[in-house]
Amino acid sequence: MKRLEKIYEGKAKILYATDDPGLIIQYFKDEATAFDGKKKGIIEKKGVFNNRISTRIFKYLEAKGVKTHFVDQPSEREMVVRRLTIIPIEVVVRNVVAGSLSKRFGIEEGAALEEPIVELYYKSDKLGDPMINDCHVRAFGMAGEEDLRKMREEALRVNGILREFFDARGIILVDFKLEFGRTTDGEVLLADEITPDGCRLWDKTTKEKMDKDRFRRDLGKVEEAYQEVLRKVME
Amino acid sequence: MKRLEKIYEGKAKILYATDDPGLIIQYFKDEATAFDGKKKGIIEKKGVFNNRISTRIFKYLEAKGVKTHFVDQPSEREMVVRRLTIIPIEVVVRNVVAGSLSKRFGIEEGAALEEPIVELYYKSDKLGDPMINDCHVRAFGMAGEEDLRKMREEALRVNGILREFFDARGIILVDFKLEFGRTTDGEVLLADEITPDGCRLWDKTTKEKMDKDRFRRDLGKVEEAYQEVLRKVME
Repeated sequence: MKRLEKIYEGKAKILYATDDPGLIIQYFKDEATAFDGKKKGIIEKKGVFNNRISTRIFKYLEAKGVKTHFVDQPSEREMVVRRLTIIPIEVVVRNVVAGSLSKRFGIEEGAALEEPIVELYYKSDKLGDPMINDCHVRAFGMAGEEDLRKMREEALRVNGILREFFDARGIILVDFKLEFGRTTDGEVLLADEITPDGCRLWDKTTKEKMDKDRFRRDLGKVEEAYQEVLRKVME
Repeated sequence: MKRLEKIYEGKAKILYATDDPGLIIQYFKDEATAFDGKKKGIIEKKGVFNNRISTRIFKYLEAKGVKTHFVDQPSEREMVVRRLTIIPIEVVVRNVVAGSLSKRFGIEEGAALEEPIVELYYKSDKLGDPMINDCHVRAFGMAGEEDLRKMREEALRVNGILREFFDARGIILVDFKLEFGRTTDGEVLLADEITPDGCRLWDKTTKEKMDKDRFRRDLGKVEEAYQEVLRKVME
């Protein structure tokens, strides 16, 4: 398969066309951004770590029956995935209070939630990814009723699988963001990536952060955290 | 019935106990605030207009079968209402894009919505009334599942009734906020007030604003707008 022209460059990845119209390449960069792009930096080798972490997790989810866009990992920074129409909704699942949830409700980070909280955000850099509900999805045609139902269901299923997966490796899956896309046949697949860029991961014993919050909050040892997550998910 | 001690003073109303433990008095003030209290002012006679407008609307809704906390309007600025435990959720219903919805999604004010959008906000001055979804309501125990279902259903029913009511009077009901409370028997009643403080009302022909946006945006003729709404709802 040949890598062809650049289709899109995002904050952490570049998408390339290939000579197969049904496949594209996700190229993982080291660039990191936070606070709607206001903070920028490089996390050395992040692209390599994230490609491996995401590959491992997508394969694990596929083995558990979750359909993803993952096809192959041909090189350190490249992932071959199915070409999808991305649904412009970020699905966030939370098991523990942290980040914006903590701020929004004035609740201390670390408070456990009895059942997961699912939040929807409209994927729009220009608008700063506003939180939305089912009415907004319907009113602005962001996704069909059935696709949204499927996304929510899959997000909760992925949460169940990954909580256990990380727990077995001494890591708490605090929260994470998922994106989905539609194939030309209308099938909804899990897309994007699952990495410490979009998941909060805490050491079960020390509660130390092992995710992009180390970059966001200048906690140091950012590369080391990503590398450690890679080591653990490979166990 | 005797007015007794002050129970609570809000931004636009004061609540007083009465010698009937099941009833309280809402006293309507002229104070107006906007932008989470950052903007403050007086709208001359607003309390009188709002008490009358709200009385008229509550009575109209009751006649249509909507249960409200309204009991009586004994004086210009006083409304006797049932004593409820207020559910800390604001239910916003929108028929036309305006205000925060317009800003959040970068859509021009005035765009019609094919079906109403319902939004939930957590009633908390300290937190700036953050938008919430059903998961937050459940996780933080803001309301029971059944109460929330009832609130949403009633909000849409009220929307249907009031859209028609205002339309017949040459006014577009753009959006509005409702609050609900629980009686000691667990019944959920429509509470608070329904006035130009919490509704967006536009003249059907000229699209002129007849609500608190005149105060928020310094459009002038604020008192006149409230008075005109009162005149129209009394038709």
